[in-house]
Amino acid sequence: MTDIGAVKETLRAQRIETPSWAYGNSGTRFKVFAQQGVPRTPQEKIDDAATVHRYTGVAPTVALHIPWDRVDDYAALADHARNAGITLGAINSNVFQDDDYMLGSVTNPDPAVRKKALNHLLECVDIMDATGSRDLKLWFSDGTNYPGQDDVRERQDRLAEALSAVYDRLGDDQRLLLEYKLFEPAFYTTDVPDWGTAYAHCLRLGPKAVVCVDTGHHAPGTNIEFIVAVLLREGKLGAFDFNSRFYADDDLMVGAADPFQLFRIMHEVVRGGGLGPQVAFMLDQCHNIEPKIPGQIRSVMNVQEATAKALLVDADALRAAQRSGDVLGANAVLMDAYNTDVRPLLAELREEMGLDPDPMAAYRRSGYAERIVAERVGGTAAGWGA
Amino acid sequence: MTDIGAVKETLRAQRIETPSWAYGNSGTRFKVFAQQGVPRTPQEKIDDAATVHRYTGVAPTVALHIPWDRVDDYAALADHARNAGITLGAINSNVFQDDDYMLGSVTNPDPAVRKKALNHLLECVDIMDATGSRDLKLWFSDGTNYPGQDDVRERQDRLAEALSAVYDRLGDDQRLLLEYKLFEPAFYTTDVPDWGTAYAHCLRLGPKAVVCVDTGHHAPGTNIEFIVAVLLREGKLGAFDFNSRFYADDDLMVGAADPFQLFRIMHEVVRGGGLGPQVAFMLDQCHNIEPKIPGQIRSVMNVQEATAKALLVDADALRAAQRSGDVLGANAVLMDAYNTDVRPLLAELREEMGLDPDPMAAYRRSGYAERIVAERVGGTAAGWGA
Amino acid sequence: MTDIGAVKETLRAQRIETPSWAYGNSGTRFKVFAQQGVPRTPQEKIDDAATVHRYTGVAPTVALHIPWDRVDDYAALADHARNAGITLGAINSNVFQDDDYMLGSVTNPDPAVRKKALNHLLECVDIMDATGSRDLKLWFSDGTNYPGQDDVRERQDRLAEALSAVYDRLGDDQRLLLEYKLFEPAFYTTDVPDWGTAYAHCLRLGPKAVVCVDTGHHAPGTNIEFIVAVLLREGKLGAFDFNSRFYADDDLMVGAADPFQLFRIMHEVVRGGGLGPQVAFMLDQCHNIEPKIPGQIRSVMNVQEATAKALLVDADALRAAQRSGDVLGANAVLMDAYNTDVRPLLAELREEMGLDPDPMAAYRRSGYAERIVAERVGGTAAGWGA
Amino acid sequence: MTDIGAVKETLRAQRIETPSWAYGNSGTRFKVFAQQGVPRTPQEKIDDAATVHRYTGVAPTVALHIPWDRVDDYAALADHARNAGITLGAINSNVFQDDDYMLGSVTNPDPAVRKKALNHLLECVDIMDATGSRDLKLWFSDGTNYPGQDDVRERQDRLAEALSAVYDRLGDDQRLLLEYKLFEPAFYTTDVPDWGTAYAHCLRLGPKAVVCVDTGHHAPGTNIEFIVAVLLREGKLGAFDFNSRFYADDDLMVGAADPFQLFRIMHEVVRGGGLGPQVAFMLDQCHNIEPKIPGQIRSVMNVQEATAKALLVDADALRAAQRSGDVLGANAVLMDAYNTDVRPLLAELREEMGLDPDPMAAYRRSGYAERIVAERVGGTAAGWGA
Repeated sequence: MTDIGAVKETLRAQRIETPSWAYGNSGTRFKVFAQQGVPRTPQEKIDDAATVHRYTGVAPTVALHIPWDRVDDYAALADHARNAGITLGAINSNVFQDDDYMLGSVTNPDPAVRKKALNHLLECVDIMDATGSRDLKLWFSDGTNYPGQDDVRERQDRLAEALSAVYDRLGDDQRLLLEYKLFEPAFYTTDVPDWGTAYAHCLRLGPKAVVCVDTGHHAPGTNIEFIVAVLLREGKLGAFDFNSRFYADDDLMVGAADPFQLFRIMHEVVRGGGLGPQVAFMLDQCHNIEPKIPGQIRSVMNVQEATAKALLVDADALRAAQRSGDVLGANAVLMDAYNTDVRPLLAELREEMGLDPDPMAAYRRSGYAERIVAERVGGTAAGWGA
Repeated sequence: MTDIGAVKETLRAQRIETPSWAYGNSGTRFKVFAQQGVPRTPQEKIDDAATVHRYTGVAPTVALHIPWDRVDDYAALADHARNAGITLGAINSNVFQDDDYMLGSVTNPDPAVRKKALNHLLECVDIMDATGSRDLKLWFSDGTNYPGQDDVRERQDRLAEALSAVYDRLGDDQRLLLEYKLFEPAFYTTDVPDWGTAYAHCLRLGPKAVVCVDTGHHAPGTNIEFIVAVLLREGKLGAFDFNSRFYADDDLMVGAADPFQLFRIMHEVVRGGGLGPQVAFMLDQCHNIEPKIPGQIRSVMNVQEATAKALLVDADALRAAQRSGDVLGANAVLMDAYNTDVRPLLAELREEMGLDPDPMAAYRRSGYAERIVAERVGGTAAGWGA
Repeated sequence: MTDIGAVKETLRAQRIETPSWAYGNSGTRFKVFAQQGVPRTPQEKIDDAATVHRYTGVAPTVALHIPWDRVDDYAALADHARNAGITLGAINSNVFQDDDYMLGSVTNPDPAVRKKALNHLLECVDIMDATGSRDLKLWFSDGTNYPGQDDVRERQDRLAEALSAVYDRLGDDQRLLLEYKLFEPAFYTTDVPDWGTAYAHCLRLGPKAVVCVDTGHHAPGTNIEFIVAVLLREGKLGAFDFNSRFYADDDLMVGAADPFQLFRIMHEVVRGGGLGPQVAFMLDQCHNIEPKIPGQIRSVMNVQEATAKALLVDADALRAAQRSGDVLGANAVLMDAYNTDVRPLLAELREEMGLDPDPMAAYRRSGYAERIVAERVGGTAAGWGA
Repeated sequence: MTDIGAVKETLRAQRIETPSWAYGNSGTRFKVFAQQGVPRTPQEKIDDAATVHRYTGVAPTVALHIPWDRVDDYAALADHARNAGITLGAINSNVFQDDDYMLGSVTNPDPAVRKKALNHLLECVDIMDATGSRDLKLWFSDGTNYPGQDDVRERQDRLAEALSAVYDRLGDDQRLLLEYKLFEPAFYTTDVPDWGTAYAHCLRLGPKAVVCVDTGHHAPGTNIEFIVAVLLREGKLGAFDFNSRFYADDDLMVGAADPFQLFRIMHEVVRGGGLGPQVAFMLDQCHNIEPKIPGQIRSVMNVQEATAKALLVDADALRAAQRSGDVLGANAVLMDAYNTDVRPLLAELREEMGLDPDPMAAYRRSGYAERIVAERVGGTAAGWGA
């Protein structure tokens, strides 16, 4: 039997980080559709992230993206966040938006470009020192578009060298999260295309290097929850970048495309002891056509709902059915939890936390959306370039 | 036995259209890397296209993209092309880069937006009248990102209505090419996702509506040459948008990712009588990291090589093996042609046509690349927005 | 607001056909694991199908597979079914298990084999006359394994010829369901690989030819509900073969792999008026490792649950949100229905129908499983070969 | 400049192992088409493998599959092979064809089944001692079909335990090759689904455990040559199971579906120093519709051709272009080698080796095919069950 009190306690303690860039404009290569009220500064992004936390209660940190969120005074930025009710989270490096990086950043055939890229990564650790961030998230767009374009193996050597330099620079309580991605923007090889490559590098680097699983970065048919289970077993799962997809790295709201998959992932997280602080739960999404703050609120709620369902799985009954080889019985235990409507439970929890039971409605009523449209006039709307 | 003279005659008559937008800058959602010497006007794009024709001899037309290539005087633009040694080809409509089109163009829930989109399509037919173009290529980015976002079926009704209006506006010698695409930029449904949908619409429209097969627009594992064979059998294959892909719509140089697939496609084209004028062979590619003019020259050569190999297939031997159920024998006949090195044959043909046998080297030696870098200073480099 | 009474009425009237072959042994190319109590005759398969109906109340017909279910006296077989409480449903042809069909059946290069295959199809219509079946389901394993092996286009001609002969043989109230499949057992081309090919053939044949959508037969990433919507719009959706898959044609229990997809499919069915008798809802699954009768019961329940959720969608609210371009609002209306736990509603409905509210438990308690294990000793267990 | 003499020397030294099971009947779950002349005993399979070697000169070993090739006296079997002109190669274990293994072998929830499976693996090492085989190839069909069916993580523990026991049993010169596969016959999770999982296990086991790459076992879009490069860099690539595929694990002749991919794989092998004895080149194919011995001969030739092309890559020119960031130039160096027709070179090499320059024709002329059809009458044709 499931202890509802314990389930609530776990859900109350859950922490989901939203990304600063989700509040700015984004799009596809075809078009970035501008939205009104979009933040123009890192401070305004933080305000929006704080708004998501105000209505959900479980999103108390915001991830920064450098250089998009570069400021002169990170301590002041951290103060701004604290005053808004949240704190700064992971630092995301960006070595893909400079013309120098056309053929790669840390794996570029040109040593001068590699050095430039590495310097940026090291600067990110400096920023972490200033912001008090624990995690440095590394995603590399590095790769090649054509067979023969560069030496696949040598690029691994270059990557290892850069990662090692960054690792050595980390403080005792800092971590490096290495993210993998099958393709895009590189179209033939990607230098960290799969969890195996990320895992192999992290293993050589040491305990402070862990893998970040972006749920949109796999080949069709990949069983993501299996990877989660294996990485937890190996002690190398460091973080999630949550989003959802139907085709490629669509970056839709997490839980929107395949809620059952999200549930299965959370089931393996619960099973493998991954709900503690060693695994960071982060969103990494692009709200191309939907309003951004509600998009984040809905996403946080979707993660909560999947977590709640995973916590409701009757572990004893499941284990008993599994041990006895009862295929349908074991599946039914899992499906019973999935088919449960957990929205009343979460509404109840929110009320206990002093929140509105319906975060979407509460945000809508708050007038925040209208306020930012009215106030954020002039300036340059934040986007992937700024 | 294959008649080499006839093979050469067919290759000499082949026509491959290059797209004006391939000469401008392009990229992914992550970054558009600027290149030097990129055209700033439709005229300069035409000059580059003419250069590709000068060295290959089989690319005598250039496709335009409206509004990227909008000019006041299309007759003058046609003159410019003629003076450069080529003519204007298909007109490509663009109803995806206006903020109004965030939720669709001709399938938008808002009738005012639908009207605006339709007006653009009709304007494109006006331009065709002015340029003397035969083909209007229609690609719609329309679709939805989330289940429930819009009514899938009603969007088909709206699409049919718009297509019908465009069809009625076509002149006697004009055609409508309807392109399909699995996904991107829409991530849940695309309103014309597959050949079946395009085919069904074209069938209802009439003989002037035909399907355009973009080789990068299919689900993983799709057998493209089968679609080619079926559409030719139905008399509904109107054009190719050639490019190649490893993952999604990567838009790499045609023949770069899977040259055997390109050969198989050309085999079905030859088999199905598709080498005549009723099937337009067009490139639709993005040279994100490679130089643009050489990228087009190489692509034209790749199509030529695949065509040459397809023409070398010993049709009698193939048919005999197929009829007798000789699996390995029939496959071997096809592979014999594919494994033939056709580069000497094509070099010979080029010399007979008064061309340099090595177009890539000839272009390199010509100094054109250095000249455009020196001359095209100032102004705004052409790209997907202009 | 949804009218629960009307929802129940629709659910009560729903009909889901189970396939005789689901009660026999099945497996992969690696191994068929034998189970105890498996039927040895068509009559015993019918008894099992009747058992599924007894506990679900919505599975009153069973599909036959010829020659696996060949008997001397089909009228007697129909009587057997009626006595068991069900009737005979669709007739499934089988032209893939004879050594003659190695290179194809109706598309075989050898005319003698084509004739043999056609005769079998015509025999199936004779059987339909005897059983009173409305639907002939045609699935062809025909295709090729190697490029060049056979002429892709000519195979279409042969296919069209055979279909036409079958069509002409159909009675006024009989239909031909043409099923498509991406691959397996053919590995290079399949002669009916996608809905477009099936649709094109059915269109030429006439109104009695309609398409059968098997939910496991698509390329990765294919949006099945889109196809459903388009086929309903064209009046050419004739049937579903339900099952679920993670990778290829896995033939798992419907709703087991992606329950949200099944819901989206049923949403388009409801939206497109597909719940009437013109669309046959059939299961086509292989219970390789799970017990067969409970596997069917669970599958029927899964279809019911997805249907119930689709019926709960607030159509007015959805339309209003869609029309106003409210992306998140429209998605939320759909998700509200999906997130509802419909098991209590279905339990209630079953009690109203005089059934046990929990069919799985009721079957378990019934002793039927133990009885068939005890009784079905000796003989040859039914499987894909018999 | 490439040294043709050195290329030939390398090609002459290449060793490609054929599998005993390729000479028996095989098929899909739908049908195993019987062929005439198929071997009935391990000895006859060896005779067929020796025939492939006789005409190709580079296939001097044959892999065995236990229990399909179980004999009382393995020393006598080795003698038989030696007399036929070849030797025995890798031992392939089989823990997937016993009813006990329905829910898994070494990862089965039932400890008794696990023990039985482990005993089989240990027996295989005994056989290796008797045959003098170096390699034990382990492929597990283990996995689950339904979410929740078994504990994903615990299955990894069970797997690790079994592998460790086998590893400890290996002799000093023996190796364990761990093969991975995305799916089939398991349809939800596979216990070794990807190279990362295989790599992680091999790393913990020690230097005698290495990864086997089956070219048909990946998710769509996976870049196999990247995996090859990474495994070679890590010193953990132990073997290839060659075959080709368009969709899933189609097990077609290697090089038949994507010859360019095979070339790219061989390019990384050459680049990474993988042509030595530490990487075993094995075929693992099913000739469902093509004659089996010619299918193997063609496959061996396809591997040779891809290897020859990879050896012809101008490594200096490639490196120079890569270092200078010349995307098209580097790609062109690779394509030059690929586009070369190497069949004359290989014909020449064969003549130097005292072989017929055209192995397919020589085999056809030999009368071997007719002889085995005449002689192998009666008995049970070898297949996947025997």
